[in-house]
Amino acid sequence: MDTLKAGIYGATGYTGYELVTILQRHPRVEIVFATSKTYAGQSLRDIFPAAPGLPLISAEEADLGNVDMVFLCLPHASSAATAVTALEAGVKVIDLSADFRFRDVAVYEEWYKVRHPAPHLLAEAVYGLTEFARDDLRGVRLVANPGCYTTTTLLALAPLMQAQAEIGGDIIVDAKSGVSGAGRTPKTNTLFVEVTDNFSPYAIGRMHRHLPEMEQVIGWWHDRPPNLIFSPHLLPVPRGILANIYVIGLQTWPESEVRALYAAAYGDEQFVDVLPEGELVTLAHVVHTNNCVISLTFSGKALIITSALDNLVKGAAGQAVQNMNAVVGLPEEMALT
Amino acid sequence: MDTLKAGIYGATGYTGYELVTILQRHPRVEIVFATSKTYAGQSLRDIFPAAPGLPLISAEEADLGNVDMVFLCLPHASSAATAVTALEAGVKVIDLSADFRFRDVAVYEEWYKVRHPAPHLLAEAVYGLTEFARDDLRGVRLVANPGCYTTTTLLALAPLMQAQAEIGGDIIVDAKSGVSGAGRTPKTNTLFVEVTDNFSPYAIGRMHRHLPEMEQVIGWWHDRPPNLIFSPHLLPVPRGILANIYVIGLQTWPESEVRALYAAAYGDEQFVDVLPEGELVTLAHVVHTNNCVISLTFSGKALIITSALDNLVKGAAGQAVQNMNAVVGLPEEMALT
Amino acid sequence: MDTLKAGIYGATGYTGYELVTILQRHPRVEIVFATSKTYAGQSLRDIFPAAPGLPLISAEEADLGNVDMVFLCLPHASSAATAVTALEAGVKVIDLSADFRFRDVAVYEEWYKVRHPAPHLLAEAVYGLTEFARDDLRGVRLVANPGCYTTTTLLALAPLMQAQAEIGGDIIVDAKSGVSGAGRTPKTNTLFVEVTDNFSPYAIGRMHRHLPEMEQVIGWWHDRPPNLIFSPHLLPVPRGILANIYVIGLQTWPESEVRALYAAAYGDEQFVDVLPEGELVTLAHVVHTNNCVISLTFSGKALIITSALDNLVKGAAGQAVQNMNAVVGLPEEMALT
Amino acid sequence: MDTLKAGIYGATGYTGYELVTILQRHPRVEIVFATSKTYAGQSLRDIFPAAPGLPLISAEEADLGNVDMVFLCLPHASSAATAVTALEAGVKVIDLSADFRFRDVAVYEEWYKVRHPAPHLLAEAVYGLTEFARDDLRGVRLVANPGCYTTTTLLALAPLMQAQAEIGGDIIVDAKSGVSGAGRTPKTNTLFVEVTDNFSPYAIGRMHRHLPEMEQVIGWWHDRPPNLIFSPHLLPVPRGILANIYVIGLQTWPESEVRALYAAAYGDEQFVDVLPEGELVTLAHVVHTNNCVISLTFSGKALIITSALDNLVKGAAGQAVQNMNAVVGLPEEMALT
Repeated sequence: MDTLKAGIYGATGYTGYELVTILQRHPRVEIVFATSKTYAGQSLRDIFPAAPGLPLISAEEADLGNVDMVFLCLPHASSAATAVTALEAGVKVIDLSADFRFRDVAVYEEWYKVRHPAPHLLAEAVYGLTEFARDDLRGVRLVANPGCYTTTTLLALAPLMQAQAEIGGDIIVDAKSGVSGAGRTPKTNTLFVEVTDNFSPYAIGRMHRHLPEMEQVIGWWHDRPPNLIFSPHLLPVPRGILANIYVIGLQTWPESEVRALYAAAYGDEQFVDVLPEGELVTLAHVVHTNNCVISLTFSGKALIITSALDNLVKGAAGQAVQNMNAVVGLPEEMALT
Repeated sequence: MDTLKAGIYGATGYTGYELVTILQRHPRVEIVFATSKTYAGQSLRDIFPAAPGLPLISAEEADLGNVDMVFLCLPHASSAATAVTALEAGVKVIDLSADFRFRDVAVYEEWYKVRHPAPHLLAEAVYGLTEFARDDLRGVRLVANPGCYTTTTLLALAPLMQAQAEIGGDIIVDAKSGVSGAGRTPKTNTLFVEVTDNFSPYAIGRMHRHLPEMEQVIGWWHDRPPNLIFSPHLLPVPRGILANIYVIGLQTWPESEVRALYAAAYGDEQFVDVLPEGELVTLAHVVHTNNCVISLTFSGKALIITSALDNLVKGAAGQAVQNMNAVVGLPEEMALT
Repeated sequence: MDTLKAGIYGATGYTGYELVTILQRHPRVEIVFATSKTYAGQSLRDIFPAAPGLPLISAEEADLGNVDMVFLCLPHASSAATAVTALEAGVKVIDLSADFRFRDVAVYEEWYKVRHPAPHLLAEAVYGLTEFARDDLRGVRLVANPGCYTTTTLLALAPLMQAQAEIGGDIIVDAKSGVSGAGRTPKTNTLFVEVTDNFSPYAIGRMHRHLPEMEQVIGWWHDRPPNLIFSPHLLPVPRGILANIYVIGLQTWPESEVRALYAAAYGDEQFVDVLPEGELVTLAHVVHTNNCVISLTFSGKALIITSALDNLVKGAAGQAVQNMNAVVGLPEEMALT
Repeated sequence: MDTLKAGIYGATGYTGYELVTILQRHPRVEIVFATSKTYAGQSLRDIFPAAPGLPLISAEEADLGNVDMVFLCLPHASSAATAVTALEAGVKVIDLSADFRFRDVAVYEEWYKVRHPAPHLLAEAVYGLTEFARDDLRGVRLVANPGCYTTTTLLALAPLMQAQAEIGGDIIVDAKSGVSGAGRTPKTNTLFVEVTDNFSPYAIGRMHRHLPEMEQVIGWWHDRPPNLIFSPHLLPVPRGILANIYVIGLQTWPESEVRALYAAAYGDEQFVDVLPEGELVTLAHVVHTNNCVISLTFSGKALIITSALDNLVKGAAGQAVQNMNAVVGLPEEMALT
């Protein structure tokens, strides 16, 4: 393969901009176009002062005939509609919205409150949690990039779930996200004055849209999947997610065996680090990197898995590029280290 | 006088909320109504979780027959229209917008780009820089509350200007404001992610609307008013303004004489503090207080006046209550210390 | 009683300064002295620019003959030694350190790694969780003020624990605290550059000193006290604690009954608010107030109690003054609303 | 030249860590050792969780026989002593302290209050403001890396000063710096609680050590150098400097001519950008880059030059690597874009 020609839809959100930044340093990718509904006609540098002077066009102006792959950083539903157009033009799609994350259209429609524009594509889409999807990604034309909270939680739980760990009760995910996760559309609750000096839980219990996404994947892995409780919070930082995942009834395995499971799962992974005993992950371990860093704390019969990543990188644009690399057969880490 | 019955228009902006907070602890004031265009029908506590449960009504529902005084925390032009209605109902008005700050309607219309709704009232309005207006405030029915940057600058310069200081050249005001000064209407440039870790100049030179307001008042004080250069900045803090005011050509007076001027002007003022030699004011001196704190630094022939206040208190709601106290003959500091 | 004469040991930490601020506005208290090891000879205003100009003396200079009560904002062990001296001089003591919080000296010595200087006083000290201690506080001479995380957790759990709720498993406390909780002594991990844009768990599991304190009190309340897991975090805000408390196995009572328990416990309390269904507490509800605000979220068989307070006020200095009011028979809310 | 072997003294300050980050991605540099007084024996990753696992040694253990060049991120005076040792061992030195910035030892000793350990080297050291020193840097063995405020100011003023602009009066530099500029040694005034929500001027007038450094270089450029007034401030952000530089009496040249001067000076420079008319630089333009970005605002007879850079990159470690590249004849931008 020579240079991969890429288009980006929705380049002026925080995720879109992060994606431009990563792709610009990718030695095998050329950004052919970048779209923006709000800022078409301007340059990306007009919006983000440290950005390259990439021209922004409207989605209608995008020339699908000139690209190999598109990345969709669009609102849900509008994303799926664009995917259909791109696929029909023979262009591969990596979709960063939720539109192709669910195999069951009913779950999607219940949680996202819209009619799915292209349910026939759900079976084809590969759920791109790269570390567990790379064999399925090679050569496919449609990738559903996982949610940011979902990635944080699934990478933390995968070794346990895939090993069919017996969990005595619910699993609790107490998660905190930086404000960029809420997007760049102006809203009162993401204003500086509202966020700074504050800390806010929202949609706690079983109310957040990333919950059914987590449960779907855990259901693929575990024969008797445990119930999840998920508590997201808005943290007064620009980026990063850190979650404590409480696995209370994990009675069957000793600490050494659990640590061995994680070492086996991630010992060879370059983007998932499991910290040595006694060290705890913080946001400073992960921001501006494509790493998910995990620490394991055992306390009596409870296991606390602390998992952190950068919501814009490993939780979105970085994982999208990792998926792109896997799809086209490039080294997964290209442009990501 | 018994209890003063007050109404607040625009109670759900940052200034309106600060005003509610101050008036609620005022022993001689009862808040009779509070209006909100966006949140009418809700309670103030629904908007600000630590606020009292004050019901919010639309401006149309406000009963002017039941109040003695109204505070207007409204956008310009709409403020003046409301003032007219209130005055016609025999209600005194303290206007926190720019609508009655200018004596010359042409200056207002040039800088605010609207036709003034009530130019006939401009001559009557008292410009409420309390320390220099208290004699004029007693009993009046219309007060124009000064702008936040303007108050910071005018209190810093008043002793020099009133003494007809000979200034060799321009006076430079390099000012930095917390984000609440930009209001609570959602805009991209006041989102947390845009403001945190950032610092931004805007409208520097002679472009900001508080500039003609400063120059108008300096023109009242000084026979040959100096030219001002004014550079505002957005500071990543929720509240507070700090400005360095450079008076370069002040060659005629020695340091001791300048210090004596400030001591004479403010020695008896409870809301303006001049720090002793060697101390520099910071935002921590003033936030959440009604104080303007000033430090004087002499360097060769230059004088640097550093002036700071809380933009929501002394720069807006606090000074408004100080003016109210002056208008009705209560001790100026009531509810403000 | 006339004016209560009070002394403050350790006035230049964040808690000490908050205490000065509250006591200065207390109509029945006079601050007779304030000590500081580091800053004796200076004024409190030299340290905190918005503080009153209170002179700071060394502990040795403090005249115990001239005060009725002292507040100890000192490191542990040194606090107990000072308490002994004060009590011998006939002065009442409210100790904000951990020294008198434990009835069992062995627990204290295990967790605090020092020999207790005055174990004979442990039985006498009243544990000042005011809402549940007020009957015991009247007239006593030694009060142990609870820890900040402890207060957040105990107020959240008290109604359940006192009602002997059957808890199926562990109770998980995922708590986040502002940086003032770590004190004012310069350390690398509380530097601005280390904290801002970051979020850090520490001492999670069963390792933090507030854990045995929580369990002691729960043990007083509940016949078969559940096990706690406690995960504290450093939050990039100056003040405030917010905790999610997960009670997973609460199977016996329906939601309505639990809500009724909380209403019964706190309906008449002025410093504990339970939010209506559907509302979630944030730090903005509580900072700069003496309130602990609680929200209850039911999700399947799990109950999530979210509890928040200001670590310097209700979590320290505010509760100390509330305790002082209770001890001397003043209205509990005096100087606190 | 093959690989350049480099040693870093003082790798665990903010500048030292930034330098490691840059050199690690430099294709022609190998970091042979990194020293730390406080953390010798540990790994850099123990101090900065996202850092590489570089072992830290004491300065005494450093093997100068195995390196070509050393970078000194040490306190002044101790830096010069280390430079002497390195030079004697035939190793080139890039010193990031102030020790070799002054040609006149008396100026250094007056401002830094120490006896200079190696005054005989002052004449030899090249002042590494790279854009104006590159011809002198080639092959030298001792480079004095400029201060962060100094770089911000000198790059802003160079075109004017070198063109012998007639300045009617003082030049005012109102500068604001992120907290990393104050170093990583724990001090009360850089604690999170002290800095957040605050903004503080310090050492304003003619009191900061970067002032004589600025004036020395301006003196090289301009025959009749203007007087400077310099007002630094502590900004509640981790990194970045932004300064407004007021040139008041610039009467002789029209705007077009001044713009042409800057275009001529920087049109071909890759690390100095002059923004188009109407755009203002912010910290977001420069943080995490090696760029100094400048905007020019004309207002009557005044020129306001706004200049910004990242104090740890272009203001320290980035410029140091740029200097290293210039010394050894590599492309200046290597590892810096």
